Amino acid sequence: MKILAFDTSNKPLTVAVVSDGNILASIESTEKKTHSVSLLPDIQQVLKDSKLSIEGIDLIAVAQGPGSYTGVRIAVTVAKTLAFTLKKNLVGVSSLEVLAADGSEDKILVPLMDARNDNAFAGVYQYQDGKLVNLIEDHHTSMEKLLGSLKQHGSDKLEFINATEHLTDLIKDVYPGAMIMDTKDSLPKADKLAKLAENKPVVSDVDNFVPNYLRLTQAEHDWYQKGHKKDGNISYVEEV
Amino acid sequence: MKILAFDTSNKPLTVAVVSDGNILASIESTEKKTHSVSLLPDIQQVLKDSKLSIEGIDLIAVAQGPGSYTGVRIAVTVAKTLAFTLKKNLVGVSSLEVLAADGSEDKILVPLMDARNDNAFAGVYQYQDGKLVNLIEDHHTSMEKLLGSLKQHGSDKLEFINATEHLTDLIKDVYPGAMIMDTKDSLPKADKLAKLAENKPVVSDVDNFVPNYLRLTQAEHDWYQKGHKKDGNISYVEEV
Repeated sequence: MKILAFDTSNKPLTVAVVSDGNILASIESTEKKTHSVSLLPDIQQVLKDSKLSIEGIDLIAVAQGPGSYTGVRIAVTVAKTLAFTLKKNLVGVSSLEVLAADGSEDKILVPLMDARNDNAFAGVYQYQDGKLVNLIEDHHTSMEKLLGSLKQHGSDKLEFINATEHLTDLIKDVYPGAMIMDTKDSLPKADKLAKLAENKPVVSDVDNFVPNYLRLTQAEHDWYQKGHKKDGNISYVEEV
Repeated sequence: MKILAFDTSNKPLTVAVVSDGNILASIESTEKKTHSVSLLPDIQQVLKDSKLSIEGIDLIAVAQGPGSYTGVRIAVTVAKTLAFTLKKNLVGVSSLEVLAADGSEDKILVPLMDARNDNAFAGVYQYQDGKLVNLIEDHHTSMEKLLGSLKQHGSDKLEFINATEHLTDLIKDVYPGAMIMDTKDSLPKADKLAKLAENKPVVSDVDNFVPNYLRLTQAEHDWYQKGHKKDGNISYVEEV
């Protein structure tokens, strides 16, 4: 099975083609270009490097969030449009799980996205028999609560991934011995995303496949504060 | 030439297939669903109604902005991905021009998007020999300045399109006799978008085709205020 996988949920952009577990081509880029400009050419490039046409792809795998509002939305929209146009299956994978997949096999893996004000999006994962297992579901949390919930594991078992400088300081206060991968060293890898996608259910309703932000954006929050109802039918996006 | 055209830059969503000037199918919807959910099924529907497969389309035409940040971005991303996947030509048309295209043949047409604080995105258009001509380029402006610049035409020659209640009040103060289409009656029509696209140049660099917001979004504005440089290489979108 040939999988085209991409993740633009964070600053780095990653695209790969994986065929039956073998990486045919991959790009991991931290180049300072917008994802909306880079994504399609990078997809074109990995296809060329794989000597495949886009029609030769069997499955589209995309990082579905949480992460940058625009980045996630671009990736999800491109993935949906490709799946629609090419009549291919689509799989969404958590952006945090993609980060965790690059962690150590013997650690408790805590992928993070800094959500400001001492908060983060985080999940807790562990490799068991070579398979990445989810221990605590992705959620929006205060760092204090998150760090408190990891006490049972002990400092030297923990590996935090994608920690900003500020989050690193907060972690070190509680777990001085923990392994911490900072944002520069935490590159999501689309080939790992492709492998994760192999074991996930295919999206049954592509039209209703949407980003998973895990939390309202600040703009949405402000909008609902202003008295707009949230009833599942009328959303912020349509109103603005 | 078969053109697939769509505009999600505003609350209404419109999709059409036009073949050599004939409308094969069209949808204009104000249904309260997010454009990101509705756009692809609606494209599917107009193709089905036109008895065409997506591969049978020769040109993709999209409203490129100004308008809703998310709406424009979704349409542009879908258009780029379709053009890329199907290897078809792409044309971008101003969302304001699409609104103007539905105006009267004998009026000075002023399509608007309310930009709050007595400001608007606006352009000035006129039909000349059945062709829509741009008199004043689309721009971000105070309503005061805009209304002042139209004095030469006189109240009864003017037709304002897509005016919110507040903009209607401002217009009526200055031009009590002007024709005003409110937001409910101003539906962009994708078949008109398709016809406009026929006379526009094809996008030569699809990868670098981006929304045309005409102005920084508030979030971008705040971000640059915080001291981030705007040098054309590093943008707000990549940093968040």
